[in-house]
Amino acid sequence: MRPAAPALAVRVLEGIGEVRPGDDLVEVILASAGETLAEGDILVVTSKVVSKAEGRIVRAADREQAITDETVRVVATRAHEGGVTRIVENRLGIVAAAAGVDASNTEDGTVLLLPADPDASARSIAEGLRSRTGHRVGVILSDTLGRPWREGQTDIAIGAAGVHVFDDLRGTTDAAGKPLSVTMPCVADELAAAGDLVKGKARGCPVAVVSGLGHLVGPLDLPGARSIARPAERDLFRLGTDEAMAQGAVAGRTAGYSAGRSIGFAEGFAAALAATERERVHR
Amino acid sequence: MRPAAPALAVRVLEGIGEVRPGDDLVEVILASAGETLAEGDILVVTSKVVSKAEGRIVRAADREQAITDETVRVVATRAHEGGVTRIVENRLGIVAAAAGVDASNTEDGTVLLLPADPDASARSIAEGLRSRTGHRVGVILSDTLGRPWREGQTDIAIGAAGVHVFDDLRGTTDAAGKPLSVTMPCVADELAAAGDLVKGKARGCPVAVVSGLGHLVGPLDLPGARSIARPAERDLFRLGTDEAMAQGAVAGRTAGYSAGRSIGFAEGFAAALAATERERVHR
Repeated sequence: MRPAAPALAVRVLEGIGEVRPGDDLVEVILASAGETLAEGDILVVTSKVVSKAEGRIVRAADREQAITDETVRVVATRAHEGGVTRIVENRLGIVAAAAGVDASNTEDGTVLLLPADPDASARSIAEGLRSRTGHRVGVILSDTLGRPWREGQTDIAIGAAGVHVFDDLRGTTDAAGKPLSVTMPCVADELAAAGDLVKGKARGCPVAVVSGLGHLVGPLDLPGARSIARPAERDLFRLGTDEAMAQGAVAGRTAGYSAGRSIGFAEGFAAALAATERERVHR
Repeated sequence: MRPAAPALAVRVLEGIGEVRPGDDLVEVILASAGETLAEGDILVVTSKVVSKAEGRIVRAADREQAITDETVRVVATRAHEGGVTRIVENRLGIVAAAAGVDASNTEDGTVLLLPADPDASARSIAEGLRSRTGHRVGVILSDTLGRPWREGQTDIAIGAAGVHVFDDLRGTTDAAGKPLSVTMPCVADELAAAGDLVKGKARGCPVAVVSGLGHLVGPLDLPGARSIARPAERDLFRLGTDEAMAQGAVAGRTAGYSAGRSIGFAEGFAAALAATERERVHR
């Protein structure tokens, strides 16, 4: 016996060939999906095909310059055999290695930039699909990113339209009636992850369709994926550890800084460490 | 027309009531799932119910001590109205606020610790389900975590058994035949995320079943979620920015350190920044 109604289903759209600059992704998607799109479906589109359709292609020889142009702020650097990878905040507020400039699944001698405005691209696709099918669908643009503390990569949302990027549970209660004050699941990232489970990186299927989550679909002017990026000034990990230590070391050699903010943090941190140790010892 | 065969389906097991210390989760799951589990299914179990079944409950008054006991290393601290939140690496190698000690969905006056050994818990559940159903199923234990750089939370895998935690694509090629050398999707985290999309935080459904990804299911002795944690010494973000700057500042006041490692990083970082600026200006 199989369940009659899965709560959520994810499938890939098959037969989408190579996407080229100027291609209309609404047409490309409809040519593959036929009449199968339904009210409340959410399409997870690999941002790479959007970049290709938008002609965001540069010569591989210009890769380093392209990364520089996409960079707002260098977050960390990592030296390795092939050179130095820059982990940067790009102009979309996304922290990514090489600013998201990517050489895989591209023509030889070229690299791809992220779409110029992924939320706008998602909106254009969602708008076209809604108008052509008559169904209210949502669109997520996904990219594959590494992350601190955990090995491997997951797909996340870099663009979104017509879909809630957060399932905002603040102000609601848990099953025991207690307020869920800090819970704000980033469903856009979870949708991108679910899409990746079926798309596969190497199989040429850049679009997944998630059905069964129509409650997350809404008007086209909902906040996009830009609203997921946390501003650096509110981020506890806005700089790599080595970079932050080095900045602190340089600053520590000036008397003015010694009495300043960083030392306040040093003392707070030392106090927290000491408290942790005390509790451990006195147990 | 709806697609005949979704590539992936996720549903919740309904009717699982409150889990109590000593409950046998294999029985709890089978009582809800009946005969619906099938070969290749992957169960995503909210770690909280595993903690409850294992009696990992402490008095709320002992919360700070419990966090200390779970802590291997303080990564960062964040001051807020209610006190100071410690972001720590816990004994499982997971970096989490308050070491994953959680007060939501618990009885009043109590908090829950993470399972003592989530991979072992997952294995015990997978083993029991395989033996009782005759089907090779996988098990993921999930938890809800915040992350650097992006707002909101996603569910990730803190335990796994009988399922590949990475879909290791290293050594394979992309659609254009180029090597996918750095791609290692963390499918365990993506499975946890997909599960969260249907489980919901407040609706008392702690178990999701993912069907259609049997190729990710394998023997019970596959590496568990412990293998996802990146060791601190290889992590670019092993300390919070303020904490690292403060450590650097303290060290910077000693002459020995000035000539040492951190300054080397400072110079490397300054050079990378300068190169970025140069490229930007000379364009």
